[in-house]
Amino acid sequence: MLSDVLLVSAPGKVILHGEHAVVHGKVALAVALNLRTFLQLQPHSSGKVSLNLPNIGIKRAWDVARLQLLDMSFLEQGDPTVPILEKLEKLKEVADFPEDCTDHERLAVLAFLYLYLCICRKQRALPSLDIVVWSELPPGAGLGSSAAYSVCLAAALLTLCEEIPNPLKDGEASSRWTAEDLELINKWAFQGEKVIHGNPSGVDNAVSTWGGALRYQQGKISSLKRPPALKILLINTKVPRSTKALVLNVRNRLLKFPKIVAPLLTSINAISLECERVLEEMATAVPAPEHYLALEELIDMNQHHLNALGVGHTSLDQLCQVTMAHGLHSKLTGAGGGGCGITLLRPDLTGPEVEAVKQALTGCGFDCWETSIGAPGVSVHTAASLDAPVWQALDGLCAGQWASSS
Amino acid sequence: MLSDVLLVSAPGKVILHGEHAVVHGKVALAVALNLRTFLQLQPHSSGKVSLNLPNIGIKRAWDVARLQLLDMSFLEQGDPTVPILEKLEKLKEVADFPEDCTDHERLAVLAFLYLYLCICRKQRALPSLDIVVWSELPPGAGLGSSAAYSVCLAAALLTLCEEIPNPLKDGEASSRWTAEDLELINKWAFQGEKVIHGNPSGVDNAVSTWGGALRYQQGKISSLKRPPALKILLINTKVPRSTKALVLNVRNRLLKFPKIVAPLLTSINAISLECERVLEEMATAVPAPEHYLALEELIDMNQHHLNALGVGHTSLDQLCQVTMAHGLHSKLTGAGGGGCGITLLRPDLTGPEVEAVKQALTGCGFDCWETSIGAPGVSVHTAASLDAPVWQALDGLCAGQWASSS
Repeated sequence: MLSDVLLVSAPGKVILHGEHAVVHGKVALAVALNLRTFLQLQPHSSGKVSLNLPNIGIKRAWDVARLQLLDMSFLEQGDPTVPILEKLEKLKEVADFPEDCTDHERLAVLAFLYLYLCICRKQRALPSLDIVVWSELPPGAGLGSSAAYSVCLAAALLTLCEEIPNPLKDGEASSRWTAEDLELINKWAFQGEKVIHGNPSGVDNAVSTWGGALRYQQGKISSLKRPPALKILLINTKVPRSTKALVLNVRNRLLKFPKIVAPLLTSINAISLECERVLEEMATAVPAPEHYLALEELIDMNQHHLNALGVGHTSLDQLCQVTMAHGLHSKLTGAGGGGCGITLLRPDLTGPEVEAVKQALTGCGFDCWETSIGAPGVSVHTAASLDAPVWQALDGLCAGQWASSS
Repeated sequence: MLSDVLLVSAPGKVILHGEHAVVHGKVALAVALNLRTFLQLQPHSSGKVSLNLPNIGIKRAWDVARLQLLDMSFLEQGDPTVPILEKLEKLKEVADFPEDCTDHERLAVLAFLYLYLCICRKQRALPSLDIVVWSELPPGAGLGSSAAYSVCLAAALLTLCEEIPNPLKDGEASSRWTAEDLELINKWAFQGEKVIHGNPSGVDNAVSTWGGALRYQQGKISSLKRPPALKILLINTKVPRSTKALVLNVRNRLLKFPKIVAPLLTSINAISLECERVLEEMATAVPAPEHYLALEELIDMNQHHLNALGVGHTSLDQLCQVTMAHGLHSKLTGAGGGGCGITLLRPDLTGPEVEAVKQALTGCGFDCWETSIGAPGVSVHTAASLDAPVWQALDGLCAGQWASSS
C-alpha cells in the first residue's frame, strides 16, 4: 500500500457528433473535455476513511474498523447475476445516510463506498485515507462529471492498493498509465457509473479514462488514433432539459415520419464519419485552414440536423447566432433542448477576439469556458504541477471538519 | 375575333417543398400563390397595338400596318430546330428598342411581341388592341411573376383570336377554361417563358395555368387532386440573392460531402411526398388540426434541411424566429439566401393574431402579404367582379399616353 499523497485528474466529455443518432444505431464521436475532475488521496493511519466533495457540499467519514467487520461477500464481482441494485441496498445500510440526503449525494457516496470496498477489501486491512474530489465540470450538464469522478476514484484506489503502479517518474509533472492499467481503471470506473446511472453506455468513463476521441456505435467503443486537441468554447445555456423526454421526441418523430427522419439519421452518421476522417487527417498532416473549415461545415450541418430532429431550443439558436456574428460555428452537444453547446475556436483567433465572443455569450446569461477537446485521459500529477485554483480547492478544503456517520 | 374587353388573371407560384432538391432529381411541390397578375385586353380599330406594364413603367405601342408587313416566317413553330435565340434577334429589330432599355424591360416586351405575332398572325389581319398588365406580385422574387404574365398574355390573345372560347357565362363573375384549352394556354405561356428565361423548367407557367398544387420531378409535371387552399403569409426579406450562385453552392456541398448531402436530399424528397399525402388527405376528409400540425412539422424540418444545404440567411432565421414567437411556422421558398419565405396560417388564428405577426414582420423591414396557396389558375373575370384596387390599377392607367416606337 502506498503512503504518499496521490493526485489524480480525469477529463469530462462532450459529444462532438452523433448525439441522438447514436440511440438509433449510428456512430457518435465522444471527445475528452479538458475541464477536469481532480482527486487528492491522502493515506494515513487515523482509522477513518473520509470523503469530501466540495462541489456538492458533502463531507462524510466512516470508521475503518466498523467497515472491516461487515460481511462484504455481497460485493463479489464473480457473480454477474447478482443485480447491482441488490448490492446497493446493502451498501445503503453501510452508508447510514441521514434522512435529508438528496439522491445526487447518495449516489456519489454510494459509488465511493462501492469502489473503496470492492477495490480495497483484498488488502489485509481496509486503508485509512482522506479523499477530496473537486471538479471544474458543472454537474448534471451531460459533460460526464460522474464518469470523471468514478475514473478518478478507480485510478486512485487501484494505485493505492498497488493493483496498478503509480506511473509518475522522478522529474515528471504528470504521467499516465499503460493501456493495460487503463483497461482496469476503466472497468472499475464503469462499475462506479453503474452505481450512479444504473445502465450507462460506458462511453463517458471510456472517454474520461482514455482521453482523446472515441467512436461509439451499438455498444462498440474504439479510440481514434492521435486526434488533435481542438480549442473550443463550452457554453452552458443553463436551460434545464429532460434527456429522456428529448430522446422520446426523436423516437416519436422517427415513427411519425420514418422516410424523412431515417435518411436524416444516415446524414448525421455520415457527419460523424467525415469528422473522424478529418480529425485523423489532421493527426497525420499539419492541420490546415481547410481542416478547420470542414470541421465548421460539419458543425453547422449537424446543428441544423439536430434542429430537424426537434431537439433544438431558442437558447441554442441564440448561442449559434451570437457566435456566428463573430464568425464562429457552434452546435448543441448532448441531449439538446437547452443544456450545453460547443463553439470551435480556430487557431488563428486572437485573444481579444475570443474574449469578445465570451463576453457576448455571458451577456446572454450563459456560462462559458474556454477549454479544449481531445484532452488527455486520466492522469497522475505532482502537487507542484497543479494550477493554484485546483490546489487551493483540494488543499484548502482538506483542512475542514468531517461529518461522521459512524 | 372578339370585340369585348377581356379581363384575365393568373396566379404566382411558390415552392412549398423541394427547392434545390429538385435540381438533383427530387420531387418539388409548387403551389399557386393567390397574388395575381391581371390583364385587360381592349380590342379596337385604331391601327395600333399597345402594351402598358405599369409595374415596371413600360408603355409601348406599334403600328399594326408596319408589323403586318414583316416577314414573320421566322416565327414558324413547325421547325423546332430553329433556336429561339435566333428568333429573338429578329424580334428585337421589330421591337426597335431605345438604347436605355433594361434587359428586364426588353424581355417583357419581347415576350409580348412574340406571343402577339405568333398567336394572332393566323388572323386575316393583326388585331389592333390595348393591353394593360398589372400584378400584385413583386418581380424578381422567385414568385413566378413572368410566368403569370405569359399565362395572362397567352390566355387573352388565344381568346381574342377565338383559338379558345371565352368560358365566361352570363351571370358568372369569373370562369376558367376547360382542361384542353388550358393545355393550349400553357403551351403558349411556356413559349413566353422561354423568351424571358431561355431554359425554364415549365413549372411556373404550369402552376399559373392550372392553379392548385403541382408535383414536379425530372421534367414530369402532374397536378395534385383538389388540394386545399391554405392561408399563408408571404414575406419578402428584400435581401437580394443570386439563384445561380445558391444552386452552385448546393452542388459544391454535394460534391464535397456526398454521403452527408445525398441522404439530406432524400429526406427533403420524403418531405415533399409526405406533404403531398397530407394535402390529398385534407382534400378527401375534413381538414383537422393534426393535418395542420403535420404541415407545420414538415415546414420546420425542411427549413432546417435548407439551412443544412447552406441556402439559409440571417434574414430568414429572423423571419422564422419572429413567426415562431407567435407560434407560427415558416420556411424560405425558392432559392433562399434571402428572398422570400412563407408562414402557414392555421384556420384557428384570429384576425388580431395575424395582424400582430404581420406588424412584427414589417417591423423587421420585410414586405408581407396575407394571401393563400392552392389558388385557382388562369381565370377570366367580369369587370364588376374585380376588387377596386385592381380595377383602378388597370383602368386608371389605361388612360395614359403611349410611347410609340414606330
